[in-house]
Amino acid sequence: MSFQYPEEKLIKLLTERVLKVRNDTIEICRPLKTEDYVLQVSDFASPAKWHLGHTSWFFETFILKEFYPEYKEFDSKFGFVFNSYYLSAGEKVARDKRGNISRPTVKEVYEYRDYVDKHLLKLTEFQIDDSNLKRLKYLLEIGLNHEQQHQELLYMDIKYSFFYNPLKPVFDSKSKVDEPDFNNEEVVEWISMEEGVYDIGHSGNQFCYDNELEKHKVYLNDFQISSALVTNKDFAEFISEGGYKNFVHWHDEGWKWVQENNIEAPLYWIKERNGWFQFTLQGIHPILPNDKLKHISYYEASAFASWKGLRLPTEFEWEAASGKFKKGSHWEWTNSAYLPYPGFKIAKGALGEYNGKFMINQMVLRGASKFTPEGHSRDTYRNFFHPYLSWQMSGIRLAK
Amino acid sequence: MSFQYPEEKLIKLLTERVLKVRNDTIEICRPLKTEDYVLQVSDFASPAKWHLGHTSWFFETFILKEFYPEYKEFDSKFGFVFNSYYLSAGEKVARDKRGNISRPTVKEVYEYRDYVDKHLLKLTEFQIDDSNLKRLKYLLEIGLNHEQQHQELLYMDIKYSFFYNPLKPVFDSKSKVDEPDFNNEEVVEWISMEEGVYDIGHSGNQFCYDNELEKHKVYLNDFQISSALVTNKDFAEFISEGGYKNFVHWHDEGWKWVQENNIEAPLYWIKERNGWFQFTLQGIHPILPNDKLKHISYYEASAFASWKGLRLPTEFEWEAASGKFKKGSHWEWTNSAYLPYPGFKIAKGALGEYNGKFMINQMVLRGASKFTPEGHSRDTYRNFFHPYLSWQMSGIRLAK
Amino acid sequence: MSFQYPEEKLIKLLTERVLKVRNDTIEICRPLKTEDYVLQVSDFASPAKWHLGHTSWFFETFILKEFYPEYKEFDSKFGFVFNSYYLSAGEKVARDKRGNISRPTVKEVYEYRDYVDKHLLKLTEFQIDDSNLKRLKYLLEIGLNHEQQHQELLYMDIKYSFFYNPLKPVFDSKSKVDEPDFNNEEVVEWISMEEGVYDIGHSGNQFCYDNELEKHKVYLNDFQISSALVTNKDFAEFISEGGYKNFVHWHDEGWKWVQENNIEAPLYWIKERNGWFQFTLQGIHPILPNDKLKHISYYEASAFASWKGLRLPTEFEWEAASGKFKKGSHWEWTNSAYLPYPGFKIAKGALGEYNGKFMINQMVLRGASKFTPEGHSRDTYRNFFHPYLSWQMSGIRLAK
Amino acid sequence: MSFQYPEEKLIKLLTERVLKVRNDTIEICRPLKTEDYVLQVSDFASPAKWHLGHTSWFFETFILKEFYPEYKEFDSKFGFVFNSYYLSAGEKVARDKRGNISRPTVKEVYEYRDYVDKHLLKLTEFQIDDSNLKRLKYLLEIGLNHEQQHQELLYMDIKYSFFYNPLKPVFDSKSKVDEPDFNNEEVVEWISMEEGVYDIGHSGNQFCYDNELEKHKVYLNDFQISSALVTNKDFAEFISEGGYKNFVHWHDEGWKWVQENNIEAPLYWIKERNGWFQFTLQGIHPILPNDKLKHISYYEASAFASWKGLRLPTEFEWEAASGKFKKGSHWEWTNSAYLPYPGFKIAKGALGEYNGKFMINQMVLRGASKFTPEGHSRDTYRNFFHPYLSWQMSGIRLAK
Repeated sequence: MSFQYPEEKLIKLLTERVLKVRNDTIEICRPLKTEDYVLQVSDFASPAKWHLGHTSWFFETFILKEFYPEYKEFDSKFGFVFNSYYLSAGEKVARDKRGNISRPTVKEVYEYRDYVDKHLLKLTEFQIDDSNLKRLKYLLEIGLNHEQQHQELLYMDIKYSFFYNPLKPVFDSKSKVDEPDFNNEEVVEWISMEEGVYDIGHSGNQFCYDNELEKHKVYLNDFQISSALVTNKDFAEFISEGGYKNFVHWHDEGWKWVQENNIEAPLYWIKERNGWFQFTLQGIHPILPNDKLKHISYYEASAFASWKGLRLPTEFEWEAASGKFKKGSHWEWTNSAYLPYPGFKIAKGALGEYNGKFMINQMVLRGASKFTPEGHSRDTYRNFFHPYLSWQMSGIRLAK
Repeated sequence: MSFQYPEEKLIKLLTERVLKVRNDTIEICRPLKTEDYVLQVSDFASPAKWHLGHTSWFFETFILKEFYPEYKEFDSKFGFVFNSYYLSAGEKVARDKRGNISRPTVKEVYEYRDYVDKHLLKLTEFQIDDSNLKRLKYLLEIGLNHEQQHQELLYMDIKYSFFYNPLKPVFDSKSKVDEPDFNNEEVVEWISMEEGVYDIGHSGNQFCYDNELEKHKVYLNDFQISSALVTNKDFAEFISEGGYKNFVHWHDEGWKWVQENNIEAPLYWIKERNGWFQFTLQGIHPILPNDKLKHISYYEASAFASWKGLRLPTEFEWEAASGKFKKGSHWEWTNSAYLPYPGFKIAKGALGEYNGKFMINQMVLRGASKFTPEGHSRDTYRNFFHPYLSWQMSGIRLAK
Repeated sequence: MSFQYPEEKLIKLLTERVLKVRNDTIEICRPLKTEDYVLQVSDFASPAKWHLGHTSWFFETFILKEFYPEYKEFDSKFGFVFNSYYLSAGEKVARDKRGNISRPTVKEVYEYRDYVDKHLLKLTEFQIDDSNLKRLKYLLEIGLNHEQQHQELLYMDIKYSFFYNPLKPVFDSKSKVDEPDFNNEEVVEWISMEEGVYDIGHSGNQFCYDNELEKHKVYLNDFQISSALVTNKDFAEFISEGGYKNFVHWHDEGWKWVQENNIEAPLYWIKERNGWFQFTLQGIHPILPNDKLKHISYYEASAFASWKGLRLPTEFEWEAASGKFKKGSHWEWTNSAYLPYPGFKIAKGALGEYNGKFMINQMVLRGASKFTPEGHSRDTYRNFFHPYLSWQMSGIRLAK
Repeated sequence: MSFQYPEEKLIKLLTERVLKVRNDTIEICRPLKTEDYVLQVSDFASPAKWHLGHTSWFFETFILKEFYPEYKEFDSKFGFVFNSYYLSAGEKVARDKRGNISRPTVKEVYEYRDYVDKHLLKLTEFQIDDSNLKRLKYLLEIGLNHEQQHQELLYMDIKYSFFYNPLKPVFDSKSKVDEPDFNNEEVVEWISMEEGVYDIGHSGNQFCYDNELEKHKVYLNDFQISSALVTNKDFAEFISEGGYKNFVHWHDEGWKWVQENNIEAPLYWIKERNGWFQFTLQGIHPILPNDKLKHISYYEASAFASWKGLRLPTEFEWEAASGKFKKGSHWEWTNSAYLPYPGFKIAKGALGEYNGKFMINQMVLRGASKFTPEGHSRDTYRNFFHPYLSWQMSGIRLAK
């Protein structure tokens, strides 16, 4: 997580980037009713209220407590409620019980945000020496990126909890981040890449996560990668030809997942007498055939590729070819497990828990989705999820 | 559930009793914040919002739809959300998922109540023939009693969900229904009852539930029953002498329950370095030794009785002796399983599901608690819970 | 469990009754292959090997260790393996893990039986004073009855484990205890009983269990009880008319049991294209319409009775009327919960765990089945099982 | 799974290799009692009887049914009982229920083996054309390797089931495959490897599995790998310095695994008052400090490496350096996920299910263990297990 940032003034970093991102979080939540903030319908999701509190707690704990002279916590018990997996930062509420806590109220959580933001802004008024200033900027950058990740999670978790309600409420009928795409069919081409050694990983002095480092060489065979993502029409064919009923395309664990959960279509697809529909943040609308398939698990992505006689690209193939294709609107599953790059080092202290501890049993996704905040991702960015999950906005790009 | 009600005018029944009880429900909820209404922290509890909606749905479904000419439902989808176990009245949300539903909002649920109440009041404006009027009054009486049961559940569920929050919030610092009792030690006496045939069950023309009928004869041996409930001091002794560590006092299933859940004290007891405390709707306060023990499971009640070399009374002993002792402030576990009386008949239709379907694996409690609405219980009233439950305000009266 | 036994000589008691019963256990197991002895296909069943070892351990622990001078245990580790719920008698293997233990081998367990039997027989050679002799006879009687209970469990567990095998092996093609009954249809009559006080419970100086005491008076209303058990034909009608699909006949928990386990017919009924068949210890044979229905859970028995507009008798009604009807060939579910009689006392020590600790969440069955050893049951005998269980040979006698 | 085998005569292949391996399986089982063959103490293990039947079923199904004219199955129902994950080859008994089946008996399973072996030998008597002969030899080679894998599983499963027995029986006091190593401390060195492109994967015309292909190039950075495996003494230090109590060394899922299962030492380590002991197929013996650590999960291996400030090698590093170090006596965890090599192709038909379907959520192990049959493994061999498993004989080789 070390990076060389440009010579950016603290005041500019705070006002033009950090507080702007902080405000974006509030904007995302604007259509929510108070009751919506409390829901946790699965252990992999969190209540909106928790995201709001947790991101504030992050700035308070890792920045204000270190840099703000005689900082007074907003509420000393909030750490217990809003800590997540930072075990080194103290006890916490069990991950699957966050939806059982009604207090602090939404109003109090917004007051907490406000309190933290005001104190962040005041940081410019203190004398901070160069070495500390560098560290402060570094931590602000982390906090900003951390907040952006929770913005994406907010969309994911809100969508999932609204879907769970049998009344299927509409979040925001004008939501730009989850709208149907009425475009025509796209011409799909195979992009050819040559065998050889490629540079993989982040370089340059912009921010990146520790898991994108060290930059290193990877040897790739000849391969071809599709210029476009798989569409709803493509996947509807997989369904109608019995893709979910035939084990030969599935991993052993994928097949078990299909059987035990009676999976018959992607998450958010709803079968009505008059065809397939899709639940979105704008409400329910018909499946558009040329729209790109989204909310797909790795198991489904892999089975689909196998059914086509093709495969998913590795994350290295994806990164090597990324300059040659148009970026999709969803995260793209790769066939790479989430593992450390050569030379990967875990940072000291609580922030060191950020990435390395998740490097088991997860698969890498590349790209970015419409839920991803502007400027958050990049070609070397490594997103990761367990293979059975699909509440993230994930799609499929094929390779061979 | 048949009863001869006194000649009560419909308008009086509605305004002086039904709508008064309806309003009491709102009063109970007054200290809640919007977020509090959504919580369901266990599958045996329900969100406050659900109780409010369900009791309104009950009047709408079983009364307004039948008696209000051309009645227009407030929202046709509410039946799905607010139905409970009335399987004959249509599909419903799974019992353990009620806390995952944020919409309708609390405000909408209050509007629903208001809508239902206004229509109930208007029932007086229609011409209703005698036979229908009789049935209407009967159903209103059921609705009123049903609402009172949910008032008690509201207190139980609110207390349980607040306890679950690690911040242990205070519901109402002046709550009368869950306050410590600073009384002096009570003199406890054994009341002797003679062997013979006793009348058991409800008679007279006041309302009662179907499970209190038919009135019938029961033969009882000589027995003695305590004049008072067991106190905190009594039970603290059981704990300190290893009552929770010694299987000999426990039922086989009770012992398993203790082991698997690491039970070491009654629900709501909190051990601090300076002694035992108790969580209440007023907040946390020290255990008062002369206060009556409450929130005890049947397993604990039975183990305690066995440890004392005594036993719990049967529900028949309790009822036969009930005129001789001062009523306690909690429900009192009996050693009777919840089973039908001779001649018990299940009513036709959805209301018939009310009681009979629960007559398995539950134990009877008699009396009433501070959570019970004034006038709801009586000496023949049969409350019932599974033996492992203790979120109801239950205590112990011993017999021998 | 106190009783006045007739003046029976120790040698006679041992040779003519105890060792005879001990030998019957071996006869029951004769058709088993070594592999069959190890199976435990459910946590409520036990391996045949365990039954053989446990019954021997019972005699060794409660009799030989007390009465045989300087008795030397066959193997000091067997107590750990063959103890059941006698928590006071030391640690034990978890109930649901008994099938995971291959050693001691079947051969060793038979050697253990032989060792114990030989030492039991030698008890006649020692000088035992009157008071001890009385206690010894009492314990032998308990051991004998305990062994008989395990004989019935052996049949139940063997049948259940053979059914579990997809190859549906035949236990014994000539087994008398589970053969089809080719009798003609029986004339069924209603036996009328008059309201009044009846004596319930065991009296006389023959052996009985503690749960049959004290003899006490019970007041019964007028009732009628069927002269015969429900037949397969009766129940087939219940099935074909949708009995398993209609919640109105079921307890709430019974309905959940039906749903969660997809129950569509009694245990051991197998639907083939050409009709219903039944798995028995003799193998698979067609359902005979006039044969008495067996292996039915309490939930099913109760739902069937409700569907007929009738009910199950209480255990008191059953006992009061038992002289008036022909005994069935199966245990008969009653609508009584298994609870203590007035004056019930738990014996001191490990044997006191025998019955009282199970007096929760179980329903009483009366009568006896073809799996029950000759002479083991009587009209006051109280068998009991959880309402969802049906691997015992249980049937239905109706009342109204 | 394609390979160029040397010009080996069928008769020689059958008698000198296939039937020899088949016989080795029987030798492994020789110390077992009949009862031992039935046990399945975990869903990841299988009964010995099942391994014996399954390996015979494999030869019968994929070879005899294709090549033996008018082959008559030993028993047509065995396919149901002895199939494993070959979904294309028909229905099968659920994986976690294999221990619930006592028939066919052990004797019958041995007769089945004998029947299959006799028919295999007779294959030499038939006229088989060249192309078929090639395929037959290929399938025999697969069957042989498949049987060897089950030989290793037999040792693993037997050890695990004997450990589960509270009596801790001895399998074979002279077992060579699980004996303590009394050697002196080994000098450990760091072997240095240079950055560059390395060839990975199998080449040559000897047998290999499909997952070892295609041979391809991998770019490796400079790295160092230990000349020897981690010892018991090394790991005892990790324990005594609180390695199992400190989350910082663990993956998030590893830490959860430690917490939920109360892991405090490697599988088979037993703490006694006088120190650590180890359960082996020879019985229980003291932990020898210089003996190589074995039966370790990936989570533990990774946490140990992190605690040392080191790491596990990737499978590519391991293979590239494998010529430079002495092979250990256990499988060695790598930090590589089990994923397909470039150009990996799944074979058509049931045999195609062999490897590819497991390529998710598993980590690669390299080397071989004392449980591995002579000649079964090679430097390109890729073994794989879920990260929480440790009943395989796995150890740790460190890298940096």
